[in-house]
Amino acid sequence: MPVIGALVDAYPTYEDLEQGQNATTATIAKLLSPLPQTNTTIYCVGLNYRSHAKEANLNVPANPPVWTKPPAALASPNETIPISRFCASNLPDWEGELVFVTSRKCRNVTPEEASKYILGYTIGNDLSCRFFQLPEQSGGQFFYAKAFDKFAPIGPVLVSPSVFAKERSSASLVTRINGKVMQDTVIEKDMIFPPERVLSWMSQSTTIPAYTVVMTGTPAGVGVFQKPRQLLKDGDQIEVEISGLGTLKNVARFEEGQDSIM
Amino acid sequence: MPVIGALVDAYPTYEDLEQGQNATTATIAKLLSPLPQTNTTIYCVGLNYRSHAKEANLNVPANPPVWTKPPAALASPNETIPISRFCASNLPDWEGELVFVTSRKCRNVTPEEASKYILGYTIGNDLSCRFFQLPEQSGGQFFYAKAFDKFAPIGPVLVSPSVFAKERSSASLVTRINGKVMQDTVIEKDMIFPPERVLSWMSQSTTIPAYTVVMTGTPAGVGVFQKPRQLLKDGDQIEVEISGLGTLKNVARFEEGQDSIM
Repeated sequence: MPVIGALVDAYPTYEDLEQGQNATTATIAKLLSPLPQTNTTIYCVGLNYRSHAKEANLNVPANPPVWTKPPAALASPNETIPISRFCASNLPDWEGELVFVTSRKCRNVTPEEASKYILGYTIGNDLSCRFFQLPEQSGGQFFYAKAFDKFAPIGPVLVSPSVFAKERSSASLVTRINGKVMQDTVIEKDMIFPPERVLSWMSQSTTIPAYTVVMTGTPAGVGVFQKPRQLLKDGDQIEVEISGLGTLKNVARFEEGQDSIM
Repeated sequence: MPVIGALVDAYPTYEDLEQGQNATTATIAKLLSPLPQTNTTIYCVGLNYRSHAKEANLNVPANPPVWTKPPAALASPNETIPISRFCASNLPDWEGELVFVTSRKCRNVTPEEASKYILGYTIGNDLSCRFFQLPEQSGGQFFYAKAFDKFAPIGPVLVSPSVFAKERSSASLVTRINGKVMQDTVIEKDMIFPPERVLSWMSQSTTIPAYTVVMTGTPAGVGVFQKPRQLLKDGDQIEVEISGLGTLKNVARFEEGQDSIM
């Protein structure tokens, strides 16, 4: 895993990286999101872990439930996540997730060929204000509760599917808040729709652009279902760790002042 | 309203248009979407007409329910909408809608100041495959059913708020399928959350990029609630007309062959 101050080979282009040519030596100064920015829709998947569907007391549908986050939701590893007063007062919560990023534009992909369109895997946190997920608030649509600026940190690295393959079948996902374990599952034992099935489903009659970020759902252990309920507080350190992918760390910082006028 | 073959003043830049300078005379050859393409999320609003909430037998929530369509859903006026076999067999339907486009990046806008960020109004069709809106199919999330390529035609023109203001309070929305009226309402009498309230809500703690397309919801008269039920068929001519904004015309063309492998 990358460490600030470490020396690494740096390639000027993706083609140079593929060919292993024209590398220079660089020093890691700062970790950015594997995608520093995105121009396109970030996909989210819901109810994709048996353990989470059970804690939420929701039925698993026939297909992966998908919705989105807008590009401005993207955030980097180690980045402080600003929680506005509007968000802070509406039950901000965590969701540790396995994330994949697509490599090429695709459409009508089969589950069998989907892996050819996955550039790599990383970790994400599908931050959510639970109050707005209530049907009487937003008509049952999850988008609003999850679309706030910086509510989609991903990272710290994007790992090639061929490298992650060594860990994938036994990989665990662990979310810690201030060091205390809140989510802990073996992904492939608990997950309902694997990444290849998700990408295939998303792509039916729908063009999926290259470099699309897909957050694949969260297991049991989100804050709102803790007993007693525990939401994010100012200064909380959130860590999501997946075997073979490292640890995504962010701090939630509650903003001063009234930035919402609703 | 623009007509193919008509002569119009053409301005090389938006600034020239604002200043009324440097115009040349051009002939309209083809009508494109007011936004020929978009790089960002298209917003949709649901349950925003009392008449539609009633026909769908759904409760109106406290806030506008919002979800999105991806950029590849955008389509132009007069463009043929390809309905894949996957979509054709899953209850494709129409939703005539009032659409607005934002002018500048904004965040935390009040309803009172929201009009300053609206570039103009146009017409949209929030095409939807009803089968995938069933909770047992997609967990109650509307995104999937509405995200297919070309499922968001808008146009034919973008009308300045100051011009639309003359019509707005009495403007009606009429949707015709092959000339037969299916939706017919006076927008402001039937609409629950007006455009300014929608933009304000969307922008709370969330950056809304310039040129964001917002489809503001549909009134009663969609196909699935007709008696008997009527979905889109191959060759159907769909017209959505709003007083002062013109008529958005598209033809649904069912595609041959099996383009889905699910």
